[in-house]
Amino acid sequence: MANQQWGGRFAEGPSAIMEQINASVDFDKRLWHQDIKGSLAHSEMLAKMGIISQQDKMTIHEGLARIKTEIENDQFQFSRALEDIHMNIEARLADNIGEAGKRLHTGRSRNDQVATDFRLWVRDNIDAMILSTEHLMLTLAQRAEEYADTAMPGFTHLQSAQPVTFGHHLLAYVEMLSRDKGRLIDARNRLNESPLGAAALAGTSFPIDRQMTAKLLEFDRPMANSLDAVSDRDFALEYLSALSIMAMHLSRMAEEIVIWCSSPFSFIKLSDAYTTGSSIMPQKRNPDAAELVRAKIGRVSGALIGLLTVMKGLPLAYAKDMQEDKEQVFAATDTMMLCLAACSGMIGDLQANKENMRRWAGSGFSTATDLADWLVQKLQMPFRTAHHVTGQIVSLAEQKNLTLDQVSIEDMQKIEPKITQDIFSVLSVEASLASRVSEGGTAPSNVITQAQKWIKILQD
Amino acid sequence: MANQQWGGRFAEGPSAIMEQINASVDFDKRLWHQDIKGSLAHSEMLAKMGIISQQDKMTIHEGLARIKTEIENDQFQFSRALEDIHMNIEARLADNIGEAGKRLHTGRSRNDQVATDFRLWVRDNIDAMILSTEHLMLTLAQRAEEYADTAMPGFTHLQSAQPVTFGHHLLAYVEMLSRDKGRLIDARNRLNESPLGAAALAGTSFPIDRQMTAKLLEFDRPMANSLDAVSDRDFALEYLSALSIMAMHLSRMAEEIVIWCSSPFSFIKLSDAYTTGSSIMPQKRNPDAAELVRAKIGRVSGALIGLLTVMKGLPLAYAKDMQEDKEQVFAATDTMMLCLAACSGMIGDLQANKENMRRWAGSGFSTATDLADWLVQKLQMPFRTAHHVTGQIVSLAEQKNLTLDQVSIEDMQKIEPKITQDIFSVLSVEASLASRVSEGGTAPSNVITQAQKWIKILQD
Amino acid sequence: MANQQWGGRFAEGPSAIMEQINASVDFDKRLWHQDIKGSLAHSEMLAKMGIISQQDKMTIHEGLARIKTEIENDQFQFSRALEDIHMNIEARLADNIGEAGKRLHTGRSRNDQVATDFRLWVRDNIDAMILSTEHLMLTLAQRAEEYADTAMPGFTHLQSAQPVTFGHHLLAYVEMLSRDKGRLIDARNRLNESPLGAAALAGTSFPIDRQMTAKLLEFDRPMANSLDAVSDRDFALEYLSALSIMAMHLSRMAEEIVIWCSSPFSFIKLSDAYTTGSSIMPQKRNPDAAELVRAKIGRVSGALIGLLTVMKGLPLAYAKDMQEDKEQVFAATDTMMLCLAACSGMIGDLQANKENMRRWAGSGFSTATDLADWLVQKLQMPFRTAHHVTGQIVSLAEQKNLTLDQVSIEDMQKIEPKITQDIFSVLSVEASLASRVSEGGTAPSNVITQAQKWIKILQD
Amino acid sequence: MANQQWGGRFAEGPSAIMEQINASVDFDKRLWHQDIKGSLAHSEMLAKMGIISQQDKMTIHEGLARIKTEIENDQFQFSRALEDIHMNIEARLADNIGEAGKRLHTGRSRNDQVATDFRLWVRDNIDAMILSTEHLMLTLAQRAEEYADTAMPGFTHLQSAQPVTFGHHLLAYVEMLSRDKGRLIDARNRLNESPLGAAALAGTSFPIDRQMTAKLLEFDRPMANSLDAVSDRDFALEYLSALSIMAMHLSRMAEEIVIWCSSPFSFIKLSDAYTTGSSIMPQKRNPDAAELVRAKIGRVSGALIGLLTVMKGLPLAYAKDMQEDKEQVFAATDTMMLCLAACSGMIGDLQANKENMRRWAGSGFSTATDLADWLVQKLQMPFRTAHHVTGQIVSLAEQKNLTLDQVSIEDMQKIEPKITQDIFSVLSVEASLASRVSEGGTAPSNVITQAQKWIKILQD
Repeated sequence: MANQQWGGRFAEGPSAIMEQINASVDFDKRLWHQDIKGSLAHSEMLAKMGIISQQDKMTIHEGLARIKTEIENDQFQFSRALEDIHMNIEARLADNIGEAGKRLHTGRSRNDQVATDFRLWVRDNIDAMILSTEHLMLTLAQRAEEYADTAMPGFTHLQSAQPVTFGHHLLAYVEMLSRDKGRLIDARNRLNESPLGAAALAGTSFPIDRQMTAKLLEFDRPMANSLDAVSDRDFALEYLSALSIMAMHLSRMAEEIVIWCSSPFSFIKLSDAYTTGSSIMPQKRNPDAAELVRAKIGRVSGALIGLLTVMKGLPLAYAKDMQEDKEQVFAATDTMMLCLAACSGMIGDLQANKENMRRWAGSGFSTATDLADWLVQKLQMPFRTAHHVTGQIVSLAEQKNLTLDQVSIEDMQKIEPKITQDIFSVLSVEASLASRVSEGGTAPSNVITQAQKWIKILQD
Repeated sequence: MANQQWGGRFAEGPSAIMEQINASVDFDKRLWHQDIKGSLAHSEMLAKMGIISQQDKMTIHEGLARIKTEIENDQFQFSRALEDIHMNIEARLADNIGEAGKRLHTGRSRNDQVATDFRLWVRDNIDAMILSTEHLMLTLAQRAEEYADTAMPGFTHLQSAQPVTFGHHLLAYVEMLSRDKGRLIDARNRLNESPLGAAALAGTSFPIDRQMTAKLLEFDRPMANSLDAVSDRDFALEYLSALSIMAMHLSRMAEEIVIWCSSPFSFIKLSDAYTTGSSIMPQKRNPDAAELVRAKIGRVSGALIGLLTVMKGLPLAYAKDMQEDKEQVFAATDTMMLCLAACSGMIGDLQANKENMRRWAGSGFSTATDLADWLVQKLQMPFRTAHHVTGQIVSLAEQKNLTLDQVSIEDMQKIEPKITQDIFSVLSVEASLASRVSEGGTAPSNVITQAQKWIKILQD
Repeated sequence: MANQQWGGRFAEGPSAIMEQINASVDFDKRLWHQDIKGSLAHSEMLAKMGIISQQDKMTIHEGLARIKTEIENDQFQFSRALEDIHMNIEARLADNIGEAGKRLHTGRSRNDQVATDFRLWVRDNIDAMILSTEHLMLTLAQRAEEYADTAMPGFTHLQSAQPVTFGHHLLAYVEMLSRDKGRLIDARNRLNESPLGAAALAGTSFPIDRQMTAKLLEFDRPMANSLDAVSDRDFALEYLSALSIMAMHLSRMAEEIVIWCSSPFSFIKLSDAYTTGSSIMPQKRNPDAAELVRAKIGRVSGALIGLLTVMKGLPLAYAKDMQEDKEQVFAATDTMMLCLAACSGMIGDLQANKENMRRWAGSGFSTATDLADWLVQKLQMPFRTAHHVTGQIVSLAEQKNLTLDQVSIEDMQKIEPKITQDIFSVLSVEASLASRVSEGGTAPSNVITQAQKWIKILQD
Repeated sequence: MANQQWGGRFAEGPSAIMEQINASVDFDKRLWHQDIKGSLAHSEMLAKMGIISQQDKMTIHEGLARIKTEIENDQFQFSRALEDIHMNIEARLADNIGEAGKRLHTGRSRNDQVATDFRLWVRDNIDAMILSTEHLMLTLAQRAEEYADTAMPGFTHLQSAQPVTFGHHLLAYVEMLSRDKGRLIDARNRLNESPLGAAALAGTSFPIDRQMTAKLLEFDRPMANSLDAVSDRDFALEYLSALSIMAMHLSRMAEEIVIWCSSPFSFIKLSDAYTTGSSIMPQKRNPDAAELVRAKIGRVSGALIGLLTVMKGLPLAYAKDMQEDKEQVFAATDTMMLCLAACSGMIGDLQANKENMRRWAGSGFSTATDLADWLVQKLQMPFRTAHHVTGQIVSLAEQKNLTLDQVSIEDMQKIEPKITQDIFSVLSVEASLASRVSEGGTAPSNVITQAQKWIKILQD
């Protein structure tokens, strides 16, 4: 079956195979907007420098405007025989406006054209990605403010370690995402140089003005070396790296959502919108969206390693291998836009089950550190010694099946005679939370300040 | 621009996001053939076991036949609201045939159904991939027979080391591909167990006959553990591993083609069909197809690492993460089918430039090893000593700017008095080639035997 | 600080840099055993074919035996100036036995020698890996027999779906590991061809007997093409692929162990040996070993993708790039041997908390499918209709806060009048488990049979 | 053999396995310098805030100074039983100075301690990496100045396209490396926040001053969220991403070196220092160092994907999985320091073979674009038309086996009557080069300016 299909297609012979492997218009048509934008700037400059006439320029601009409308209205006929989006548009332009259209490509080459278009596309999508990232950050900060004093267990090794607040936990992701955003901004700044005018690879003898096209396209400056301009794709790799790290952060958030939704945990309830039900078990809310977000890192980091492999060991300048850059970048972009939207939706809608969170926050002798710290602060015990004493008290509590605040003062004093009644002031979950006022600590007062700081920043 | 698009789509709210991330029918519709095949077998068994009536079975089979026709004729309406190919087909069946259609899903679940369909798809495509691999192997063997005695330099470090024949070089790839084929066969054998009947994850209380459905679907046997049956995707990973290794082999062949086509080498000329020209330089034949084959390993190994990452740390049994398996496998399959076809085309059409190959085959004192071996064989010199003496002779030749066979016997005897005129019998490229008769060596007589052995095997 | 260190080392100049990047003896000394084994076989053959004398052969064998002893006793001086293990051993041999030692390298080259040694090493370690895999399989099967009827929730999406037994769950991993073992066996079979005699790349003019050396080294046959023999590393990639897939399986097992150990789940208790405690919380058992096993897939699949990248686009035959094969293979091997040992230890020692497992097995209306199946089997309802009716009953139970077996017959009959008292026979966890007798299903009777089958196979 | 070894080690039982998998001191001892630095700052702050006494602080500082000396003099006994470098140092401190040593760990935890140490280590090594990068950039710029007007073929698809200068080609890599350096600087800026004081995960109730420790350790500020501080490793991933992209750049340079060194190209000659010879072919200079640099991207990108996989889906806060971060980062760091040094060495020493470069620069009608541009500039022909005319002239030249500047004016005028004698002023390699004066173009005047600009920047 599968074979017949391929046999069929390739029985047509070499031309079918070559068109299939070589033509890129099926995917690079996503660059149409950037391609027209680049041609507008290029022809503007050619006219300014007297390389083409003002009349030709105006004809070209009108022709490009018409093509823009055709594409927006789905009336443009994309042709695989013309290989890529650039030739599709240029050929259509020549059809429409004749001679003037044939002058457009003066002083440039497909090599600098494609590098320009792709940089513009990545830049546009970084801007969009940053907005989506900020939206998720704001959502997290708003929910953090709401849950600023909601106790939950802080885990290490998925074992209850110390109480934290749910708001504090949500804000941890705001911090991660703010660094993800920083990486996107840095990538944008670094890529924002114009390859246009590098021509095939050596520059050109036409008296072009690369500063002007750079400015028209809102690039910071022209790239300084023509060989580099047409042959590097490090900007795409840096972008994919930033997305991979962000995907890693989202995969952690998603894993937590999945675990928190499991029956034994029951820390949160997702809204119906982001779960799939079961006709047979109406109470079931499968966290499908979270699972998919968790999985998507595979696609994004696969795209990164894929493109790194493509670029490995390529001699300068342009090689057709580099055509493999686009599908990976498109796939990773779509994936991450979707994951950010899904996370914003899930976080925005979820309801915390405060009772369950509170119950487990107090489990596992989670205030043992508070006890040890009390020994150090009130009895001037060295920390390692306090640690040891605390271990003995917890051990006793465990044997008697008590929580720490249920152990009697007498029992504690048998282990360490200097302990006083004051110890009980630090053994509750609430006391533990309230005491963590060190900078960045989980005390509700800290959390509310942090949440509000972020909300203010993000709403501006 | 990009942002408006996304903003627009997601402004529709959670349902648009969830449909976008959750629905798989856009890509898993490629499983339609396997899905129908599986349902035919399942219903056949249900009727045989008396779980549904013969009448219902016949109605179901007619209904599925009608759906098959609809899909083949592009008349089937795929619905994202129905999520995946399985629900699309089942819903259409119920529409068409009513009550009987609702009985089809008895004793199975979407979990075992999707695992069955996907295994069948991978199996079908392994079969197709093997045929394409054999086609490339045959092409290589036929060209190897043609070039069995064409001398070329054998490289280490891309430095001329010893003469080999072009036929011998081509046969090296036949060997690699035969192991690639072996990996595909092993993967096929290992995956050829039926998950059908594992149901959701625990098996079922219906008196199903898994041996029967396994047999009808040409599986070797039912999978032995229901949890394993619905939750593992190692078969897809093994397949992607085999493809990645094959892609590595093809990338090496492609790199060699690119280098051989460069002007300084000019070892081969590709046909017009597999190169792109330049309107401005009509002699130019850019080896685009070879470059794309070289690059495609990025996509295939990216798919492998992507799916490995998806599966990392997933608790049993089914999780929605596993929906990410299909696009990676589809992309890698399409890529490799195309690469194999392109390589068959390029290899089948290329013309060797025998003069250039011969010229470089004799460069770089490439018969120095033959000289050393003569010293060992004729003068019983220890190999390491012979090595040293040869070095002195080559050094002399280099100083005098001579090839090895141009050094006079007197000069040689100054270095090693026992050398005789017989030495010249081993210093030519042709003599060197002819002497390499050890099993697997490059002697033309060996090469022709090997080429014919492979042609016979592959034509059977 | 870091810079001073590097500055210091590299201030020594080019030779220090070159030695650092080029010398491999620091890691390839792990091949010493295989290198000596290969040289014993090679010299045996040389003597048999009259290429060296019997006397020389004996001298060589004695010399190699002495070196073996030196290495085993840590008395061998490895020298970076001699680059690799092969030259270290050959140089030492020449020191020890003089002239005869210089004859050892006749008719072979470092290229076929290193390929031979590395294949032997991988083969030896596959054998070891298989034993360790079988050990883990046996441990799992033995624990499965012990827990054959221990109910636990079967999860999809980490949501309770249907009851299964803990034994059944453990056996799922036996199935996965048996396929992992199958992949190792296939890799071993495919790699078991001898490169020895391919010489530098073209074969040799010495009348060597490659069949004999292949046989002495327990290879199935000589490799058929000398260029292929010295230039491919697909055997290492296939081995790393098999290890990566196995690492994926172990990462899933490890993730489950971590989740099962969390307080809200408390399904199992690991032994002290495989957890780390806390001096302050003596009850704490951090599942460190499980977390490390979960993480180690990163290293193994990183090694796989690393070596795939190294091999991408390498022209034939040998290139120094290929020296990068060994460290990746060594690291992945050590990692997986350790992970298998750690898993065997954890699984062998863990104690199931049957009460908790049983409690959650009955949660979440986990027998709803049994109810639907009863409707189909006893009332001949179509499956999709039965699904719908079940949904209504579960919905009612949810509203009344009852489990399914607590819903009154009257309430059920309001939804579906034909339901009889017999329905209660399928609504308990135990009834559900017992009913799953389909092949591969979770019924305790199945599980015990499967467990005993595996124990028998593995103990043989 | 392999098995006995493992069997032997693990026969010791669980403790041997656990120590093997759990202990990290074998590799994390590389953090000793940063660990002591962190402890000095922490104790300084504790004393300042009155949490420990000044006396205790002084004792601690003296104790740490002694340990520093011991480690530097290789007199420190590292113990696996103490697991990691942190416990090794703290235990030794307590041994040495008693009670005071037990107070050091007050108000911190191993979680924030290890995060702090590792950030410091990465920061130190980024600084070193930047210096090495600048060194390579300077070397390239200096050689570019030397070869500013040396003609060589500019390749696309490894086919000669247009002449460029060797200096221009070398400067392309300076541009790439300057962006690599930019990525390292950005990564350094982003990571430069202090986790110290986040304690286990929740902050602490001790009145610590995180601003003070941040300042002492030259961090820009404390991290804002304690959970984030101990659980994220994005800084390591960003660093590995930057290294992977740089490794990609170096792999391209290395591939070019390998190709340029091949006999048919013979563009350059490497120095003996960076090649390996052959005792048998003294003229042979295998570019081993270049091949190894080309290959090393496998290790670096393998480390990146490895750590991304480790971090995928980890619940907050600390998990033992994260211990896998260090070996990957150490390996990638060592690899890249070495590759940069090797590239600086190779580039600094290589000699260009100007004759060969010049010869191939003029091959393949490489000035055809100049001809087309002349038609546009002098005859006002539309570019696409000029392209077509040029194609006809090249075609004629090819038939007559002439270079472009050998075609007679009469023959040209038969194709386009308006062509004048002036055309020959653009058809030579030198004219072509000189005309590419557009910004970033390859004109020697441009190249020398760029090279000198970089030399000035880098020498400052």
